[in-house]
Amino acid sequence: MDGSGTNRRFVLVRRPAGRPDRDDFALVDAPLAPLAEGQFRVRNLYASLDPAIRGWLDDRESYMPPVPLGEAVRATTVGEVVESLNPEFPVGAFVVGLHAIETHSIGAPGGFSQRIDPAMAPSLTHFLSVLGAVGLTAWFGVSEILAPGPGDVLLVSGAAGAVGSLAGQIGRHRGARAIGIAGGPEKCRRLIERFGFDAAIDYRGKGAAALAAEIRALAPGGVSHVFENVGGPALDAALLSLKDGARLALCGLISEYNAAEPVGARQLWQLIVRKATMRGFLVSEFLDRFPQGAAAMAALVGQGALRFDEHVEEGIERAYPAFMRLFDGSNEGKMILKL
Amino acid sequence: MDGSGTNRRFVLVRRPAGRPDRDDFALVDAPLAPLAEGQFRVRNLYASLDPAIRGWLDDRESYMPPVPLGEAVRATTVGEVVESLNPEFPVGAFVVGLHAIETHSIGAPGGFSQRIDPAMAPSLTHFLSVLGAVGLTAWFGVSEILAPGPGDVLLVSGAAGAVGSLAGQIGRHRGARAIGIAGGPEKCRRLIERFGFDAAIDYRGKGAAALAAEIRALAPGGVSHVFENVGGPALDAALLSLKDGARLALCGLISEYNAAEPVGARQLWQLIVRKATMRGFLVSEFLDRFPQGAAAMAALVGQGALRFDEHVEEGIERAYPAFMRLFDGSNEGKMILKL
Repeated sequence: MDGSGTNRRFVLVRRPAGRPDRDDFALVDAPLAPLAEGQFRVRNLYASLDPAIRGWLDDRESYMPPVPLGEAVRATTVGEVVESLNPEFPVGAFVVGLHAIETHSIGAPGGFSQRIDPAMAPSLTHFLSVLGAVGLTAWFGVSEILAPGPGDVLLVSGAAGAVGSLAGQIGRHRGARAIGIAGGPEKCRRLIERFGFDAAIDYRGKGAAALAAEIRALAPGGVSHVFENVGGPALDAALLSLKDGARLALCGLISEYNAAEPVGARQLWQLIVRKATMRGFLVSEFLDRFPQGAAAMAALVGQGALRFDEHVEEGIERAYPAFMRLFDGSNEGKMILKL
Repeated sequence: MDGSGTNRRFVLVRRPAGRPDRDDFALVDAPLAPLAEGQFRVRNLYASLDPAIRGWLDDRESYMPPVPLGEAVRATTVGEVVESLNPEFPVGAFVVGLHAIETHSIGAPGGFSQRIDPAMAPSLTHFLSVLGAVGLTAWFGVSEILAPGPGDVLLVSGAAGAVGSLAGQIGRHRGARAIGIAGGPEKCRRLIERFGFDAAIDYRGKGAAALAAEIRALAPGGVSHVFENVGGPALDAALLSLKDGARLALCGLISEYNAAEPVGARQLWQLIVRKATMRGFLVSEFLDRFPQGAAAMAALVGQGALRFDEHVEEGIERAYPAFMRLFDGSNEGKMILKL
């Protein structure tokens, strides 16, 4: 087993009120707990920092229980088994699992740990980005929920983010035009030059009506498909720009996660007028098809058809500022914490 | 032709700001215009007063052009042809059409006028209620968009209204449990005693969280289907009560039509958590299947399987107060104006 004998953990000590504060968390060193039968210890190497984590910090009913106070913050990690009482996860095996932001996690049968083959990708971090939940969210959202094709217009909000940039590329690979919404001229430039979007719109300083006017100018016939990551005015602008019979995949509402009172969607009337369908989804509903999805994404990566970025912050001490960068729009690419 | 020689019209003279004011309209007597080739004159006998009319009064892009200032307010009417230059609509024929709140309308080929057989129903008013757009909205919304069955729970907001009360009954006829939301104990009593809902919730004085708690108490496993007429806290409560994979048919948002600033839906996050689908619809998208829908509804009426109410106000002079009763919750049943 790992020689350190201690588990350094990023622990939730107080539930955030709105925007998480540094003092809502503490770094705690704990002794390694002994393993029970069937368990195995994972030395976490990288943790995936995702907006969804914010939702798990609140004390409310959701698709997962809240992170308990005094426990390490839940996150997907990739790591190596360093001690094992489970022959299916022997020492030296690599796993991806729903663990926590800590140096050592304990896996158990029936948990969310899966063995991976490190040879599938040039870096272990890829299992937290393009081949992980981020990549699979884009894959299943675009190819299953939306299914745009030639002649269609796919609008992506949060398009410069990890999920959004992949969603636009998958849409273009299927033959659709991709229009991305992002914050600032630099991100918009990247959407077109790096990620191959057909057009980009800078949302900064614009309300829903102004954004909708820009979308309409780029897609006079209306938008047939929307991959929504943001909510608020971006979603309202999308609703105001729909083509009849449009489909919207509701993947996230990042603009609202830290709001004390959600702004909400004020243009739902457009769903009626446009006879449109909005479908919320979680990548976990496709759990039994993750291997196929990852293989499809690995194939696209292998063909050079997908560009993606990873932003790796070094050290568990950076957990708080790295997490908060998800919400201030300053990060580019999938946010990963090296543990 | 009708002997009067004048057309009394309920004319839009100013666009309402929020709640329509009496002075936004005027009664105007105009001479009957001569017919052009292919046209026919309808003596309107009844007009259907619907919440959707409110949307047509605003100067904004929608699924129909705004009612022009100086023109009679658009409405569906039932009437008799009294003068005709169109052999398909001879004098003495009865028609339902998208005409206006006026004593005489002119129909033309390619317009929204359909001949009806008065023998299909005991009263001409039924063609504006259970066999008209109201009944067909409930029919297609429940049987096509939602399709609940045995074991399912159908939540209906605005359940004491013309569309809502039929939607709940159609759902129960398909084997689902029906829970209705309405305003006040009297309407709730009617939901159960007259319309056969399994349970009723009085929304008055309650926010989304309190409403959701009541829904959850009645449907601990969550709501599988929602027929939404209201929006605002009622919709948020529905969103907070969904079962995984739920379907919502968005039929109307009557709580927001007169709001200067829509409140919006603040619990869209639940669509993601519950992997739910919200589908906006207009009855007009089923236009080519209206005859089948009307036949299906007529059959249910004939079996005594549907109860419905009509509220008939007498005289075009009552157009304004009758229309406004749609928004203050004081009417029971389909609002019809006798012209």
